[in-house]
Amino acid sequence: MIYLTRRERFNAAHKLWNLDWSDEENKAVFGKCANENWHGHNYQLFVTVKGEIKPETGYIVDLKELSVVINEEVVEKLDHKNINLDVPFMKGKLASTENLAVAIWNQIENRVADLGCQLHCVKLTETENNYVEFYG
Amino acid sequence: MIYLTRRERFNAAHKLWNLDWSDEENKAVFGKCANENWHGHNYQLFVTVKGEIKPETGYIVDLKELSVVINEEVVEKLDHKNINLDVPFMKGKLASTENLAVAIWNQIENRVADLGCQLHCVKLTETENNYVEFYG
Amino acid sequence: MIYLTRRERFNAAHKLWNLDWSDEENKAVFGKCANENWHGHNYQLFVTVKGEIKPETGYIVDLKELSVVINEEVVEKLDHKNINLDVPFMKGKLASTENLAVAIWNQIENRVADLGCQLHCVKLTETENNYVEFYG
Amino acid sequence: MIYLTRRERFNAAHKLWNLDWSDEENKAVFGKCANENWHGHNYQLFVTVKGEIKPETGYIVDLKELSVVINEEVVEKLDHKNINLDVPFMKGKLASTENLAVAIWNQIENRVADLGCQLHCVKLTETENNYVEFYG
Amino acid sequence: MIYLTRRERFNAAHKLWNLDWSDEENKAVFGKCANENWHGHNYQLFVTVKGEIKPETGYIVDLKELSVVINEEVVEKLDHKNINLDVPFMKGKLASTENLAVAIWNQIENRVADLGCQLHCVKLTETENNYVEFYG
Amino acid sequence: MIYLTRRERFNAAHKLWNLDWSDEENKAVFGKCANENWHGHNYQLFVTVKGEIKPETGYIVDLKELSVVINEEVVEKLDHKNINLDVPFMKGKLASTENLAVAIWNQIENRVADLGCQLHCVKLTETENNYVEFYG
Repeated sequence: MIYLTRRERFNAAHKLWNLDWSDEENKAVFGKCANENWHGHNYQLFVTVKGEIKPETGYIVDLKELSVVINEEVVEKLDHKNINLDVPFMKGKLASTENLAVAIWNQIENRVADLGCQLHCVKLTETENNYVEFYG
Repeated sequence: MIYLTRRERFNAAHKLWNLDWSDEENKAVFGKCANENWHGHNYQLFVTVKGEIKPETGYIVDLKELSVVINEEVVEKLDHKNINLDVPFMKGKLASTENLAVAIWNQIENRVADLGCQLHCVKLTETENNYVEFYG
Repeated sequence: MIYLTRRERFNAAHKLWNLDWSDEENKAVFGKCANENWHGHNYQLFVTVKGEIKPETGYIVDLKELSVVINEEVVEKLDHKNINLDVPFMKGKLASTENLAVAIWNQIENRVADLGCQLHCVKLTETENNYVEFYG
Repeated sequence: MIYLTRRERFNAAHKLWNLDWSDEENKAVFGKCANENWHGHNYQLFVTVKGEIKPETGYIVDLKELSVVINEEVVEKLDHKNINLDVPFMKGKLASTENLAVAIWNQIENRVADLGCQLHCVKLTETENNYVEFYG
Repeated sequence: MIYLTRRERFNAAHKLWNLDWSDEENKAVFGKCANENWHGHNYQLFVTVKGEIKPETGYIVDLKELSVVINEEVVEKLDHKNINLDVPFMKGKLASTENLAVAIWNQIENRVADLGCQLHCVKLTETENNYVEFYG
Repeated sequence: MIYLTRRERFNAAHKLWNLDWSDEENKAVFGKCANENWHGHNYQLFVTVKGEIKPETGYIVDLKELSVVINEEVVEKLDHKNINLDVPFMKGKLASTENLAVAIWNQIENRVADLGCQLHCVKLTETENNYVEFYG
């Protein structure tokens, strides 16, 4: 068993906002992250898969194929988008890094399995000072 | 003469949008950067000042004082904001990295001079793959 | 279960020195790290916590609160200090990265639990070429 | 139990090439990575060991000794070399990052044990966008 | 006048080898960089252009167009190639970082001018410890 | 004319302290940087030289020779040292980044000239948020 990680990037806008709360409650809890007109980030996404090395290629999986999956299911849907408004798979969810990491896992888990390996970790970096890891 | 650089950071939303153009023209020219619901970035700002070393402190300028100026005039007005909607000094300007760097220069030039040194360069990094430098 | 990491930084002086040994022994074992007049580092501290996502915030824990804990218990006591001389929680301990990581764990474990999540890992980077991880 | 990681670097040429396949098959599977005249990378190697902290040094292991092992067994054999042609321990193996990480593990496992700690992970970074981890 | 920089990357093999010298002379001068079977690097290329900001776009130049020029003239010809053997514009030149930076300048200078701005600097990073800058 | 930069690193302790001032004055001006028992940094030093490319090597200067000069004149005298107490060429000078950059320039200027090129810039990074550049 060996682990392979691919980094992809996307730039998106969001705000932390609970639709069940008043403006005051949102600002009290989320502070500047609840700025009504949004703010944004350069997100870095690290997808780690695990599997056996295939002897004829030396690969767990072809990185190009893994990259296609991540781009089709995640990057194209998030890059230069508003996470709260434009992203079907985040509809109705609070746009936190935690929720986004879990949603990204769900977007790619089956398609990674179709490549003959297993999704191990989704790591999502929001700033140089914070990131989230989800292992399913 | 010696040069001193201070890095500060802010996370903001924007879109590239010329208010004199139709939606189609904006999308044709700016592509995904014209997403109507915004996108965003982790901006890194590098402010370089120049001056003589003061013999009693070994400083060109006290970094804490330079940081206060940059934070008061730039970071507090941009961090967790929408550059197109929330930032008085960007009002009526296209929210490109180039225009933002020039506007930041104008925000701090005089206050840097009040600290006893001279503003030399404003460098603004939008992604790991592009940045702008303005020397006045 | 999801994992969240916060990075904080501090700059400190130290030397590797066993008080039970002679100068010669210290220099033989620790080499240049035993320079009598100290040396120092820009330490990077990565604190990882784990927990369930709270549905009303999308958070494991509020990063601002986690940052307050790390700053009060660790950063304020280490930043711009001498690890061997100035830091009560390192008193009597060899100022190695390993010992420092364990001591930082002990400083914050209970206060992290009070925030409603669980401390998972303390990672401490001393240079770009070495770091230590402690999982309790 | 605590974990210590040492980073080392080497610059090497390679190509992905299965000797049992025709040129066409190699190019179909490996694409530009099968360029006949080679290409190359700045590899970063992160070796993580685990063990108990020795009370008289505060160390799991002396980093200088760990670095000697990695340099003698790995870096000197790979740095400024062709992985396919010049490296005895890669003879007959496809020069993928996965195979290289496993081979590096085998090169150092026993010598790390001789230092009084246990090899935990070999992480090998090929580009800023991909890396492999092997835990034995 | 404002400056804009675009980063691109390529991975290539090379050796430092003067064809007029014997093997012994090459090895005496270039050391391990003269390994006969090549070695390689992850090169980072920073192309800086200068010009006036166009009021209708806020751009010096469209980064996408600049990126196309760099990719067509430089990256596609160097990425996953052998600099000594595969790159027409390096034919007959020693494959040093200095010579490569000058050759890249010559590859793109006119096409950058066609975009309505002026080439200012080609910066080429070979490892994390060395880079070259050429200003024409 | 082309520019070549070499990065070297050193880890050192220091404090900002004007020997002509009282403790109170030092603490009022330098704040936590005046901690009596020192603090420290991982300094990064970037030395830029300029010159013509020598046709037989493709080099401005042999990086190995430049590295020897920087190590002999700077790194060996600063690494794992106390800048205020242990470094002859900083004797009697305030241990600011500005003063250290100028002193490093003076240490290497002539020896760089002996290598057949010209010293262009000494850049010294103290933390990820501040650095100094000196051009003589």
